[in-house]
Amino acid sequence: MLPDWVTQECPDASAVHREAALARQAQLTKPAGALGRLEQIAVDLAGLQETEQPRAAHVPIVIFAGDHGIVVQGVSAYPQEVTIAMLANFAGGGAAISVLARELGSSLEVVDAGTLAQSPLPGIVTDKPRCGSRDFSVEPALTTDELAFALDCGKRAVLRAEAGAPDLLIFGEMGIGNTTTSAAIASALLGVSAEEIAGSGTGVDAAGRARKARLIEAALTRHELAGASAEKILCTVGGLEIAAITGAIIAAAQRRIPVLVDGFIVSVAALAAVRINPSCQPYLLSSHQSAEQGHRLVLRGLNAQPLVSLDLRLGEGSGAAIALPLVRLACALHNGMATFAQAHVPDRPA
Amino acid sequence: MLPDWVTQECPDASAVHREAALARQAQLTKPAGALGRLEQIAVDLAGLQETEQPRAAHVPIVIFAGDHGIVVQGVSAYPQEVTIAMLANFAGGGAAISVLARELGSSLEVVDAGTLAQSPLPGIVTDKPRCGSRDFSVEPALTTDELAFALDCGKRAVLRAEAGAPDLLIFGEMGIGNTTTSAAIASALLGVSAEEIAGSGTGVDAAGRARKARLIEAALTRHELAGASAEKILCTVGGLEIAAITGAIIAAAQRRIPVLVDGFIVSVAALAAVRINPSCQPYLLSSHQSAEQGHRLVLRGLNAQPLVSLDLRLGEGSGAAIALPLVRLACALHNGMATFAQAHVPDRPA
Repeated sequence: MLPDWVTQECPDASAVHREAALARQAQLTKPAGALGRLEQIAVDLAGLQETEQPRAAHVPIVIFAGDHGIVVQGVSAYPQEVTIAMLANFAGGGAAISVLARELGSSLEVVDAGTLAQSPLPGIVTDKPRCGSRDFSVEPALTTDELAFALDCGKRAVLRAEAGAPDLLIFGEMGIGNTTTSAAIASALLGVSAEEIAGSGTGVDAAGRARKARLIEAALTRHELAGASAEKILCTVGGLEIAAITGAIIAAAQRRIPVLVDGFIVSVAALAAVRINPSCQPYLLSSHQSAEQGHRLVLRGLNAQPLVSLDLRLGEGSGAAIALPLVRLACALHNGMATFAQAHVPDRPA
Repeated sequence: MLPDWVTQECPDASAVHREAALARQAQLTKPAGALGRLEQIAVDLAGLQETEQPRAAHVPIVIFAGDHGIVVQGVSAYPQEVTIAMLANFAGGGAAISVLARELGSSLEVVDAGTLAQSPLPGIVTDKPRCGSRDFSVEPALTTDELAFALDCGKRAVLRAEAGAPDLLIFGEMGIGNTTTSAAIASALLGVSAEEIAGSGTGVDAAGRARKARLIEAALTRHELAGASAEKILCTVGGLEIAAITGAIIAAAQRRIPVLVDGFIVSVAALAAVRINPSCQPYLLSSHQSAEQGHRLVLRGLNAQPLVSLDLRLGEGSGAAIALPLVRLACALHNGMATFAQAHVPDRPA
């Protein structure tokens, strides 16, 4: 059973504030529409944040980590101990997302939502129902209780972040093997073949990619996931960090906090969130189109248009962090530009 | 005659520093290539700046403004007095580029390189050989002396900026009618029809766009510009602010200062710069793909891959300013991430 809270409605965006933002954009000293996607972002945020002054100043980053039983089948280019080693790198400030968080002035919280670590790691929040998921090629990855725990773990992280009144939230992930898990979830949710979704992840070759796709196809068949619910899919082929992000996205949207969605894996968690609770969808702002093969299909499933496409394929929330300055500039332009009247600039004839 | 300095060779990028940057990228705690375009930017900057620590911290913005005789033919959606009114808006802090400069911590210098203003404007550098260009549908827009003055104007701006040791430079433009001028230059330089290049600028409709294209085609024929030199093209259908940017780009590259190239108009000035002095090309970093129709063809002519595509079509250097945070993050990641050895993270098996 899913926790009761996950299906509670998210608030609607404010049509009044959205309309006011559109009207303001039309008065700023620029040709109508000349700031393109940045105008849309500012207008969307104004509606979601119920404000005349959309903001992206305070944007905490939360990374959820987990390990994956499927890794024993040889689906990753990196050894499984990299998951825990990278948690230490996040906390130590040396990972890409650590550098980005410093540059952006964002807090960085790392949650062990299900790694193989047997004891708490320094500087990391431990919040997990078990160490690693089970190998979904032989049995369901999670029980329903474990899935519920992971969804609650995501909500708990949002409640911690909410205390600081965030303007947006960024969720990231770490977990060797989690592009395989994500591809399995996406394949089942979208009803497309694993061959179309499974990518090279951290860098497996063509043979490795074909192996991933075959493992996923076999598991979807074995567990009879065609047409299954998002809940059953997350239990059967999911991962703890992915389910935690699904819970975090729903919990953020329920609190009117928009989420700047990272790449392939977080987008898959977002797709699961939308399937479980469609009212969270307006709160999802897509940051980037990654180089991972299946991301395009997942974005289409979310009806999302990413801001940038920079051939990123790192995870950790790094793509969302890299796109954050664009959202900030969109807000600064919306709030700070002069109108034609204020600047005494002649507007075009009506 | 072009001033002597414009054809002097720009220094080569440092192959040693470029190779060192590539080697460092391979050791950072991420899958090889996982930061995509941001890795390329950092490596390119390391070579151009001859450094192990590429930087984009100090990035002055210089806007060149000019008026265009062709405007009497009704090519713009806005009245000509907007050029001068917008200069006051730049200086007053209300324009998009003013907001962006503040957010980015960049200085903003505005140069009147040839507007119709009869006397110096407050807060604006006046550096022009005449007030506005001539109507190229009836006569050449500039004399060779006026073109030389404008190229020197660009160099003078770079010399002023150079005193502050910039890491990069951003050049912007303002000038009602300058998408028509730029389309004429690009059409002649690339040898493609004006119909393919001319776009809607600040917002003319389909009939206005067709009118622009016809005016340009007629002028290119009348002045016999097929296969003409970049010098002759800039004189005949050019504009003072565009020629100033051409000069500024060459002068920056000669001083080993990379240029973050804005949208359609600055890209056309860059194409003219490369035709006049091909050795400046490596110093051009393309910031964005604009919504203006001809930009794609000009970028192809420059062999440039823009960082972002956000449907911007504002000018003022705004697209380059919007992309600057991505360059800054690329540098921060390159310089600040830990290596596998430093972080004790297992790398993939060789």
